[in-house]
Amino acid sequence: MPKVVDHEARRVDLVRATWRIVAREGLARATMRSIAEEAGFANGALKPYFASKSDLLAYAFGYVFDQTNARIREAVSGHRGIAALRAFGSEVLPLDEERLDEARIVLPFWQEALHDPLRAQVHAASMQQWRSALLTHLGEAAADGELRAGVDADRAAGSLLNFLLGAQVSAALMPADAGPRALAGQLEDWLAALTLGED
Amino acid sequence: MPKVVDHEARRVDLVRATWRIVAREGLARATMRSIAEEAGFANGALKPYFASKSDLLAYAFGYVFDQTNARIREAVSGHRGIAALRAFGSEVLPLDEERLDEARIVLPFWQEALHDPLRAQVHAASMQQWRSALLTHLGEAAADGELRAGVDADRAAGSLLNFLLGAQVSAALMPADAGPRALAGQLEDWLAALTLGED
Repeated sequence: MPKVVDHEARRVDLVRATWRIVAREGLARATMRSIAEEAGFANGALKPYFASKSDLLAYAFGYVFDQTNARIREAVSGHRGIAALRAFGSEVLPLDEERLDEARIVLPFWQEALHDPLRAQVHAASMQQWRSALLTHLGEAAADGELRAGVDADRAAGSLLNFLLGAQVSAALMPADAGPRALAGQLEDWLAALTLGED
Repeated sequence: MPKVVDHEARRVDLVRATWRIVAREGLARATMRSIAEEAGFANGALKPYFASKSDLLAYAFGYVFDQTNARIREAVSGHRGIAALRAFGSEVLPLDEERLDEARIVLPFWQEALHDPLRAQVHAASMQQWRSALLTHLGEAAADGELRAGVDADRAAGSLLNFLLGAQVSAALMPADAGPRALAGQLEDWLAALTLGED
């Protein structure tokens, strides 16, 4: 048992080393060699954990998604309707350094997903899951009388997803224009538009 | 004179060949060799036009931005306020194959811009220009009495930019979920939120 735990822990060490390099220097610089060095492994010692850079990256990207999704579940837990949408959006928006690093990782990931069906599937699965969660919370908001008349839930979920994805781009590339205050304010405006006329 | 024109025309041929490869196969496959082949140039014949792949890509990306911006100017021309915002947004949204290709090109570009100050500057200059245009049209909408009370123009411009950037990601990676009808509807909802209460 301890050996298994250790194996998994070392995989996570490698994932974290990969992130640091990708966020700091870009995907092209994340070689098996530079990742080994960053993680304090001897060159070649990665092989028992990941057979190739592609395997390691797939695992690393999956790990970012899992981590984000675990954080979302925790933030949303105990909320419903508009409050749940606010918690969800706030958790995805790159409002602190950890999430800004995730944005710096997700941009290279998208680029790979354009031409890699496995990566595309990881992205699509997460987006389906997010969309479904947003539709659930929009349904709760409607049931609780929080929504203004005429809100199209599909369009609202799609537009929130697009806003959240675009915020990753803005925050990663132009942090001065997409700081926490600006993004949080934009999320509030988006929520207010759903509920306008109700207050 | 004819020689200069020819030189410029061949640079554009090379840019178009680069786009086709990037959109179809990804940035990593766009080598000087594959671009020469795609454009019908002998291998090595690119050198008089572009000294390196990096030079060619910088020019190609700049060309996409210029083309998009020229299209925006034309679409917005003669409109102001909400109508201008609608024209602007509709021109940036990936609503047809040409713009979907631009989305497939801009994703790799963003990834490069994360770690390349020159690319980052091209992106920032375009975004500043877009933001400034959006603020102008929001100001016109306010002056013409089109906006509901309490619209924060900075936040509205930032949120529209984020929506438009995110729509590139969605359309490039999940075209079925971000088709023209869905995206155009989301833009209309965004515009309606600005003007709600006025109708």
